[in-house]
Amino acid sequence: MTSTPPVTLDDVRDAAARLKGAAHRTPVLRSRTLDARVGAEVFLKCENLQRIGAFKFRGAYNAVSRLSPEQLAKGIASFSSGNHAQAVALAARELGSSAVIVMPEDTPLSKRAAAEGYGAEIVTYDRYTGDREAIGKALAAERGLALIPPYEHPHVIAGQGTAALELMEEVGELDLLLVPVGGGGLIAGSATAVKGLSGDIRVVGVEPEQGDDTKRSLAAGHRVTIPVPRTIADGQAAEIPGELTFSVNRRLVDGIALVSDDDIRAAMQFAFERLKTVVEPSGATALAAALSGRVDRVPPRVGIILSGGNIDARRFAELCGG
Amino acid sequence: MTSTPPVTLDDVRDAAARLKGAAHRTPVLRSRTLDARVGAEVFLKCENLQRIGAFKFRGAYNAVSRLSPEQLAKGIASFSSGNHAQAVALAARELGSSAVIVMPEDTPLSKRAAAEGYGAEIVTYDRYTGDREAIGKALAAERGLALIPPYEHPHVIAGQGTAALELMEEVGELDLLLVPVGGGGLIAGSATAVKGLSGDIRVVGVEPEQGDDTKRSLAAGHRVTIPVPRTIADGQAAEIPGELTFSVNRRLVDGIALVSDDDIRAAMQFAFERLKTVVEPSGATALAAALSGRVDRVPPRVGIILSGGNIDARRFAELCGG
Repeated sequence: MTSTPPVTLDDVRDAAARLKGAAHRTPVLRSRTLDARVGAEVFLKCENLQRIGAFKFRGAYNAVSRLSPEQLAKGIASFSSGNHAQAVALAARELGSSAVIVMPEDTPLSKRAAAEGYGAEIVTYDRYTGDREAIGKALAAERGLALIPPYEHPHVIAGQGTAALELMEEVGELDLLLVPVGGGGLIAGSATAVKGLSGDIRVVGVEPEQGDDTKRSLAAGHRVTIPVPRTIADGQAAEIPGELTFSVNRRLVDGIALVSDDDIRAAMQFAFERLKTVVEPSGATALAAALSGRVDRVPPRVGIILSGGNIDARRFAELCGG
Repeated sequence: MTSTPPVTLDDVRDAAARLKGAAHRTPVLRSRTLDARVGAEVFLKCENLQRIGAFKFRGAYNAVSRLSPEQLAKGIASFSSGNHAQAVALAARELGSSAVIVMPEDTPLSKRAAAEGYGAEIVTYDRYTGDREAIGKALAAERGLALIPPYEHPHVIAGQGTAALELMEEVGELDLLLVPVGGGGLIAGSATAVKGLSGDIRVVGVEPEQGDDTKRSLAAGHRVTIPVPRTIADGQAAEIPGELTFSVNRRLVDGIALVSDDDIRAAMQFAFERLKTVVEPSGATALAAALSGRVDRVPPRVGIILSGGNIDARRFAELCGG
């Protein structure tokens, strides 16, 4: 099956141009201890230091920036209880629009407050009876809002790819890129960027053991639904890959490594104690895969995306204080 | 009383030249949230990201780098249970020397292991009956080692001043610099650097409430001894300022702000949640002073030294997980 890819390297480059001055060009961290542990030169792209504390700002801003002035005046809708909510809220505010975010009723107050702090309106639903995507779509239709979903959107995917683009621009050729996989937007954008730049790079996604929907789907050759995953990596608790993201990832992703919750905790602790940097569970899975030896055939130069750092001190203490 | 200062701006500049390529030029962090909270433009110099996780590497490396080849062959002695121990151990290793560190018997194993990991020999003493300085001096005399104390040494002070020098080189004029004060080496070097560069900058030290020996000493006009301070800021539990450091600080330091353990915990939590960076209690006191409103007349441009980040996840959880 040959078809035009929904996102290209040029789309990622175009997103990078739009993000200039709006998103941070996040630092790349090195650590001798990490290199010794992994047996490779490791380059950590610190999206935990991105605005709103996660890569999600890149995709949201790129998507919002492409809306017409008329649409920006009407506003934006999205659904997320996580980092994408804050990303859309901040992108909307910065681009002179407004955002309505659909969140489950039981979303922690701090997450709700964060999106509200950027001026978003929150609409809640019952996660046991409601479908957030359907509610988002209905709300968008009713109020004339543009719906910007967390990953099923070419502009969102292209925006997420800019972190990997920056990484390769800064450090040069890599043999392997490790990327956390939730809905699949970050890895779809990243793989599009780095495989467009280099023929030789291997792109491996990392999922929590219990949230292996993309691994199973790649093995099956079609999207597979799994039971609601139990994992501390709340940003990766997807039950099924996105349709659009899977159409990209089945072509470009070379494999999936799985990590346990203990691997993730150990990686968060390593980041804290050795790198002095804060990474949330979902943000630490790619590092966890490298540190726990769950990646086969580690080549000389490895890029890793630390995708987010939004965890409060109390939750960190629960996870890593034992 | 006029006399030649023991350390000058030229000494700090000379130290900076020696540190080039050996120490990290640490990043300067900004935060909109922090600026809003403090009511100023705040520039955080991240010495928690320095080698060995604290500014101490600067002073130790500068001092070791000035020893003769003969002395380097004989070796170095020091006394410290904290970051200076690792700093001397690493500096000695990098410069082809060897280090013997005097530590209390009850030093946590992890701190001992860190210095040993850099190849240092550890000699222990009973902190209730022994005097670490006397033991260090005796050991140095007996084995022909060069003693590099944690702060009472012009080359150590000059090295510590390079962090503030870099900060001003990078961000330009500042109206106020906030610096944690333990033995007084960091602030002595910092004040020497920034007051050499700018006539107008105010330099304010920050001590834990219970460890206010420098504040009391500045008020009295001579060095005052206080009871052993009880504070979570273990790097600032000094009972009396250094003689050399106090001779500098009485001339150059404009005041001392005090912070409580709760202020320090709140600053560590702010750094974790908002800046995604790890700061140990002593490393967070200058930030704590700014966040808790303990600094009078906050001017428009404020520099803050985050002086260290060596805290393990378990201890952080104890302090900030409640």
